[in-house]
Amino acid sequence: MIYHIRSDARSIEDRAHALVVEQSVEMPISAIDDDSVLAEIVGRVLSVTDLGSGLFEVRTALATETVGDDAGQLINMLFGNSSIHDDVVLHDVELPGALVRKFGGPRHGLDELRLRAGAGKRALTCSALKPQGVPVKKLADLARRFAEGGIDYIKDDHGLADQTYSPFAARVEAVAGALGAVRQASGRTTRYVPSLSGDLDCMRRQLAVARQAGIDTVMFAPMIMGFSNFHRLVRENPAVALMAHPTMAGAARIAPPLLIGKLFRLFGADAVIFPNHGGRFGYSPEICRALARAALQDWAGLQPSVPVPAGGMTPERVPEMLDFYGADIMLLIGGGLLAARERLTEETAAFVAAVHGHRYE
Amino acid sequence: MIYHIRSDARSIEDRAHALVVEQSVEMPISAIDDDSVLAEIVGRVLSVTDLGSGLFEVRTALATETVGDDAGQLINMLFGNSSIHDDVVLHDVELPGALVRKFGGPRHGLDELRLRAGAGKRALTCSALKPQGVPVKKLADLARRFAEGGIDYIKDDHGLADQTYSPFAARVEAVAGALGAVRQASGRTTRYVPSLSGDLDCMRRQLAVARQAGIDTVMFAPMIMGFSNFHRLVRENPAVALMAHPTMAGAARIAPPLLIGKLFRLFGADAVIFPNHGGRFGYSPEICRALARAALQDWAGLQPSVPVPAGGMTPERVPEMLDFYGADIMLLIGGGLLAARERLTEETAAFVAAVHGHRYE
Repeated sequence: MIYHIRSDARSIEDRAHALVVEQSVEMPISAIDDDSVLAEIVGRVLSVTDLGSGLFEVRTALATETVGDDAGQLINMLFGNSSIHDDVVLHDVELPGALVRKFGGPRHGLDELRLRAGAGKRALTCSALKPQGVPVKKLADLARRFAEGGIDYIKDDHGLADQTYSPFAARVEAVAGALGAVRQASGRTTRYVPSLSGDLDCMRRQLAVARQAGIDTVMFAPMIMGFSNFHRLVRENPAVALMAHPTMAGAARIAPPLLIGKLFRLFGADAVIFPNHGGRFGYSPEICRALARAALQDWAGLQPSVPVPAGGMTPERVPEMLDFYGADIMLLIGGGLLAARERLTEETAAFVAAVHGHRYE
Repeated sequence: MIYHIRSDARSIEDRAHALVVEQSVEMPISAIDDDSVLAEIVGRVLSVTDLGSGLFEVRTALATETVGDDAGQLINMLFGNSSIHDDVVLHDVELPGALVRKFGGPRHGLDELRLRAGAGKRALTCSALKPQGVPVKKLADLARRFAEGGIDYIKDDHGLADQTYSPFAARVEAVAGALGAVRQASGRTTRYVPSLSGDLDCMRRQLAVARQAGIDTVMFAPMIMGFSNFHRLVRENPAVALMAHPTMAGAARIAPPLLIGKLFRLFGADAVIFPNHGGRFGYSPEICRALARAALQDWAGLQPSVPVPAGGMTPERVPEMLDFYGADIMLLIGGGLLAARERLTEETAAFVAAVHGHRYE
């Protein structure tokens, strides 16, 4: 584990030691009379590096036995109580290959999401159904127009749950129906990615409704449903591709490349949505690049997760974003397309054309 | 909703507006052509107050329809995407009484936890089983000695899950057996509060195991299991009292009195553990006082949740803590008792006597 800690040079050794105790046995070492606990369970400080400006990198080791194979317990042991300390950021994690393979990562990932969209090696396109509060019929009409514009995926706004104004089951039926009609008429295949909400059982019911409507990709929010339940749904639904939304990620305290690029992927997200630099959120270009790399890079044989930069994106930024990220990406533009209002289909088609026709620098 | 935003005076109106858009429709207002959405769904800024030093209090209103009755969706709408913005803290929430009563709050709360312990109106006492890594037999022996010292509740260390060295079922059986033996021998009743982990189904299985062993109080981590699943377990188990642990609360970005004192209580925690000031964590006395008050105060008829200050507490601090919090409290001392090693029972008895015999200032 790699933590970044704000400290002065005099205190950092003690602080690092306190961190590994907090994240392992959570009690005074002097009160432990079990030799195997002292030898194997108490976390260890491997190294402390001064990064300058009062910031230190602390590398630690933790017994994998404390994690078992539960995703919730992994984050509990990585950062649980330390998340309450405001001087420390969980920067990165190196896990044994066996543990990585046990969690298993994406079932579909980049290749399958491209294959399903018939996208070859190009970047994928995505938009979002919104706003909250409009009736199902209107959402289905938006979906139709996105599809006529040739987009690959359409996700729910992450605020759409099972509200009275657009209940989940009615929404899925209407949107899937609208997309089916476009497919019939034009041969164009656009996938609807509904957002699951509620407790685990509720999500299972929603997933069953979606499957019945022919849907094979869904979205959820790992930080709201909890990692263990996220990983449970992944294991229960091998045929379904999963797109992870960063709501409640509050990632200022866990490095975004780790949380969204690495951990969400580890537990099985096939695509990870994250705030692009220069949009409505404050991630830097460096963080975005590191996040995309973490989602895609070789990691103990896991499938790559599709990076999905979003959050205030506009069609004008497509060339710049493609040059920045390359083609192993899904571009998600929601409000920036919806702002075209009656010209939604045309604006979508222009977005799609810009992605399909891009010549990389 | 009340947010605290760092801003300059020139930008705060725009920033406040961007916040309510982010937390409601999440798209450009100009792209919304539905009058009822504009009138009812788009969040509203009610007031902006300059708190000085570049901090502003922003009061907002949000349609309750966007929440429905799902706990996860509530936190999604309160802070989901905004949690990714590092200039904003979710400071407090005012909910309609009907919504508060729909979530329902604690089933047992302060009165019942006292009643079960035969504690009258005094403060409750609690300790913790640790460290990670010792076998079940040793944990059961620790529990026996705490019980012989007369403690009311013994919780699992929150790192104890279902690891091979102390599997949940074996641990529950052994600890419950040890406490049963003390009850037989001395008439003293001490309650074991095992920590649930894993996905919702796994927690249900653990809860069934615990119930079979006669256990009526369990602990879990709302931030790891997710609010919707937390609330589901509460509703499914009306007879079981629930103690909430703050692991992963990373509460720097959600005011601790709101998150732990108010929201954990809202969804049904009968007792809420939080880091006491002057211990291993950085909460100030003011935050701790506000948190305890939030857990206890009148709120649309909800039961009070028992505040449980913890985190590096010692027996020496008992008088000071009781004078600070009053008797409506459970004092949790873990490592501070375990440090007594072979004198654990005596040290526990001294802690218990200090609580029982305290004369409030």
